[in-house]
Amino acid sequence: MKNYRELNIDEAKTLYAELKASYNEYKACGLKLDISRGKPNADQLDLADGLLSVAMTKDTLISESGFDYRNYGLLDGIPEAKRLFADLLGLNENNIIVGGNSSLQLMYDTLSRAMIFGTCDSDKPWAKEDGLKWICVAPGYDRHFKITEDLGFELLTVKMTADGPDMDEVERLALDPKVKGIWCVPKYSNPTGNTYSDETVRRLVSMKTGAKDFRIIWDNAYAVHAFAEKDDKLLDVFEAASIAGNENRVLYFASTSKITLPGSGVAIVAASDENIAEMKRRMGTQTIGYDKINQLRHVLYFKNADNVMKHMKRLGGAIKEKFDITLGAFSALEGLGIAEWTKPYGGYFISLDITLGSAKRVYELMKDAGVTLTAVGATYPYGKDPEDKNLRIAPTYPTDKELNEACEILVLTVKMSALEKIIGA
Amino acid sequence: MKNYRELNIDEAKTLYAELKASYNEYKACGLKLDISRGKPNADQLDLADGLLSVAMTKDTLISESGFDYRNYGLLDGIPEAKRLFADLLGLNENNIIVGGNSSLQLMYDTLSRAMIFGTCDSDKPWAKEDGLKWICVAPGYDRHFKITEDLGFELLTVKMTADGPDMDEVERLALDPKVKGIWCVPKYSNPTGNTYSDETVRRLVSMKTGAKDFRIIWDNAYAVHAFAEKDDKLLDVFEAASIAGNENRVLYFASTSKITLPGSGVAIVAASDENIAEMKRRMGTQTIGYDKINQLRHVLYFKNADNVMKHMKRLGGAIKEKFDITLGAFSALEGLGIAEWTKPYGGYFISLDITLGSAKRVYELMKDAGVTLTAVGATYPYGKDPEDKNLRIAPTYPTDKELNEACEILVLTVKMSALEKIIGA
Repeated sequence: MKNYRELNIDEAKTLYAELKASYNEYKACGLKLDISRGKPNADQLDLADGLLSVAMTKDTLISESGFDYRNYGLLDGIPEAKRLFADLLGLNENNIIVGGNSSLQLMYDTLSRAMIFGTCDSDKPWAKEDGLKWICVAPGYDRHFKITEDLGFELLTVKMTADGPDMDEVERLALDPKVKGIWCVPKYSNPTGNTYSDETVRRLVSMKTGAKDFRIIWDNAYAVHAFAEKDDKLLDVFEAASIAGNENRVLYFASTSKITLPGSGVAIVAASDENIAEMKRRMGTQTIGYDKINQLRHVLYFKNADNVMKHMKRLGGAIKEKFDITLGAFSALEGLGIAEWTKPYGGYFISLDITLGSAKRVYELMKDAGVTLTAVGATYPYGKDPEDKNLRIAPTYPTDKELNEACEILVLTVKMSALEKIIGA
Repeated sequence: MKNYRELNIDEAKTLYAELKASYNEYKACGLKLDISRGKPNADQLDLADGLLSVAMTKDTLISESGFDYRNYGLLDGIPEAKRLFADLLGLNENNIIVGGNSSLQLMYDTLSRAMIFGTCDSDKPWAKEDGLKWICVAPGYDRHFKITEDLGFELLTVKMTADGPDMDEVERLALDPKVKGIWCVPKYSNPTGNTYSDETVRRLVSMKTGAKDFRIIWDNAYAVHAFAEKDDKLLDVFEAASIAGNENRVLYFASTSKITLPGSGVAIVAASDENIAEMKRRMGTQTIGYDKINQLRHVLYFKNADNVMKHMKRLGGAIKEKFDITLGAFSALEGLGIAEWTKPYGGYFISLDITLGSAKRVYELMKDAGVTLTAVGATYPYGKDPEDKNLRIAPTYPTDKELNEACEILVLTVKMSALEKIIGA
């Protein structure tokens, strides 16, 4: 197919008319499709159904050391769960707190505590400082941005590149003592699906920061979520931080939300000795402890990290199908000069850039045809994409048939929006 | 038995020597007993064992409206759980948020949000005001006091009476605009076990407060936790607040921690429309939602509020046994003029006052004999009992045999500490 930018105006108008006719046919179908959120579908959830019928007997409910997990206690989680996460993620089990069902909540609570009390490296509560700022890598995760927006930070946008954040810009911004941290999804990043390079990780943990209590929120949400043959390799952030002498800088989060069941999984935070001690001290006022039975349920279901990886292989098979459908459909855009998109080996998203800057128009056309996309701008701080380019595509939730239809319409609308720019419609 | 205050010094010395001999025998046994925390014991937990084997099938996991509870969503909880709690506690289901495993966490998060953002009635975040204060009814719950202490409030102590807080004092203190709220355990209060009178409830919700964003934390932890024939009746706080025109003043918390399993139960917050809307708006940034599967598990296990009450009847039977043992042992202190204690119809605690002010001495003697009591002062703000009088007795956790022994030693040490005062030892 010819690059759209080389079309003359008549060619463009003819093509647009054809596309619009097809689009109108779809529109007449009264579809109701949703490719907006990173939710697994029912078939993917079924793969973890065994979790809900794990036998919970006295033998298993009472630990080797005689602790009855049905009772109060163990603020930082059961040792068996710490061990499982340590093995799975290459962490030190002594530097893990096993939390509740939501890593987002652990992140929010961590920053909320920093606001009220400061961190173990702070002179005073962050809320007592004015004009605080936070680095947001964009396109990125809307719920991250919202946390720091709500907490009153000025959000500084840094461009996401193939190697992770634009580190020249991050290093420049981090020198400002008002800049307190950065959001990172280092592996199969939401929504670009790519992974930070070793150099990016090293620069993040070793860069000079103006604030001595600067924090990297290392949301490793897709740590074991490869679905392709190839799995991206992410540098060990704690080892790198330790070499740089900045162990306290890194706060590492993960969860089983996209391993077992979203909303009923288990989340963790991992950090340096000092951070963990400070967190436990503060958390002990907030709660007597998280749900140990659900932690135990996960341990009994998986038994070990190898079994988690086997489960992820099965789950990856189901997810790859969705990505293949989507990327297959997108190939019709290849060479047209009107869109670029990522081809991740893992994670939950594809980032689609509408080259000519008409993402909002695509969103509207899709909406009119009954297909919900992630709101344009959601992947940027304050929900505003300065170039009106980025669309986050979440292929996992629809059925194959629904996804096929949604992608066909998406390809149509991307073409239409480009032609509208070209012909000035 | 003769009132100790009527003993002459020789009688006192003789008696002390006898008691000390018995005490030394216990001490030589090398006991290791704990009546310090309000934890159910294994037999009580066994009564809820069915909860952990509730069948979770597709039929039940997908709601009537087609919502798959295994997936993300429903920030404020599943409707079936709202309904169960509404029926059980006489609340409006539209005014409930069903949370995670910990009502303490819901309370902490509520106050933490007030610090950072203010409430729906605040002009600014509480953290932006100086010198904030909080009313603590004492003896009361140590974990409550610790939350407001950590958040930087000055803790104001108000005496707990048979009818609830000393309301004259509460009304006086609440006129100060710096006073932002009060902690209440209105039914079977921790640790006194008594229940607020109707008049107390009415005065709390209708009193004039200096702060327009004054909040009553209504921790109804023992709402359905009667174990005697008689059940205390607590006035409907929302109805009373509505009559007084102060609906936003009340934040109501409860949980199944002492119904099913502590740490793996379900907690709720109930409040006015405005409060709930504000909470949801803020909570939506903190989490995508709480553990819906565990909410559903509780609903499937109990089915309805009647079954919860039947379960509480069985549980109450087990708990009454412990209270009977304890109160039976305490009867040996009757008429001696050295101790007073509560005789609750429900809850988890007995409050024991050492009339002559030697609670610390009792604690030490008990510790030396191998019995752990709740730290003296824990029931007071800052952990300091001004009269060194109050001991919180938690009878539920030990076995009958252990509890019998612990109580016998406790009676001994209470007598010894009193005699030491009398003979000036």
